[in-house]
Amino acid sequence: MGGAGGARLEFWLEFASTYSYLSVMRVEALAAEAGVEVAWRPFLLGPVFMSLGWNDSPFNIYPPKGRYMWRDMERLCARYGLPLTRPSAFPRNGLLAARIACRGQSEPWIGDFCRAVMAANFADNQDIGERQVVAALLDAMALPAEALIADAESDAGKAALRKQTDAAIERGIFGAPSFVVGEELFWGNDRLEDALAWATDRAAQRDRQQPR
Amino acid sequence: MGGAGGARLEFWLEFASTYSYLSVMRVEALAAEAGVEVAWRPFLLGPVFMSLGWNDSPFNIYPPKGRYMWRDMERLCARYGLPLTRPSAFPRNGLLAARIACRGQSEPWIGDFCRAVMAANFADNQDIGERQVVAALLDAMALPAEALIADAESDAGKAALRKQTDAAIERGIFGAPSFVVGEELFWGNDRLEDALAWATDRAAQRDRQQPR
Repeated sequence: MGGAGGARLEFWLEFASTYSYLSVMRVEALAAEAGVEVAWRPFLLGPVFMSLGWNDSPFNIYPPKGRYMWRDMERLCARYGLPLTRPSAFPRNGLLAARIACRGQSEPWIGDFCRAVMAANFADNQDIGERQVVAALLDAMALPAEALIADAESDAGKAALRKQTDAAIERGIFGAPSFVVGEELFWGNDRLEDALAWATDRAAQRDRQQPR
Repeated sequence: MGGAGGARLEFWLEFASTYSYLSVMRVEALAAEAGVEVAWRPFLLGPVFMSLGWNDSPFNIYPPKGRYMWRDMERLCARYGLPLTRPSAFPRNGLLAARIACRGQSEPWIGDFCRAVMAANFADNQDIGERQVVAALLDAMALPAEALIADAESDAGKAALRKQTDAAIERGIFGAPSFVVGEELFWGNDRLEDALAWATDRAAQRDRQQPR
């Protein structure tokens, strides 16, 4: 399943990340409109931040950045028509959700699952770090919660997310959401439209270079 | 001199800042189109970064952010039709230019001066920290370079920029460019259009609330 002309976007997201929430809710509709295939790439920002010397979200470490971010989120959610409840804990622990999403990143339910986790965290103020919260989201999607959680917490499930997070660092990713199109990296929800345009331009260019 | 309906935008810029370059080159045309008055607010990021615990540009402290920023600048300059030469030193010392701009922020030449400094730094790779470079820019604008530099380096000139940088921190500014409309802060060149829209919406709202 590819986009028209093979246009493709890697979408790197972290479930604890506010701006990832915005892109998770927007990406599929915009990508479908642009004819771009989305490759979901859930990962953990924690190890990335550790590699930059931060032991917490920069929005917590730098209070003016944090204050600004929450106000910016209010404005952006109003613009996009998305609900926003400031989570009572930030950042929440997205480990289990990320492991499940990583193992299921090519499944037909990946978009719905990511949106459900994000809505739980940023619209409904649920603790997505709790196993029963994640299980309830899977149940509501009629997915086999127990089996998916067991797989996510297996050695293979843990290793898959570690490998994906390492791949994020290798790609030069330092925040979320990030978008990768070929060798091009785009950082931030603001860049989603730019990244999609890059993907379609690149696919069109490749089409023109094909011998006929 | 106000925008239509009194719409007004404070534009906080730092001459060493790459993304400020983009906004300096774009702001007057966009603001004129939107009918918004621009209040130029040159300041120094150094003391702001120090208050956040950084003793250098975060683009230097965090290499993946820096690599991304330069590539992002290439893409954005291509889009805006702006020249870009990566400066041989980064960040350059914008102190003298900022002092001059701060003292002249309400003068008719402020926009031209800011654009000339930015072009020197980011298009022509000139050391804007050097007095003769800044003097040559003023000369080319037929402004009294010696007098303006002497005023900028007077006690009053130094105090004016210090006060303005303190005002930036008080407004919660943590990076450049930033835009302030009433109580609303917008951070980053990406937000220039949003800030202008906020300014015109706010002015229109105020107009509606005026008794007739």
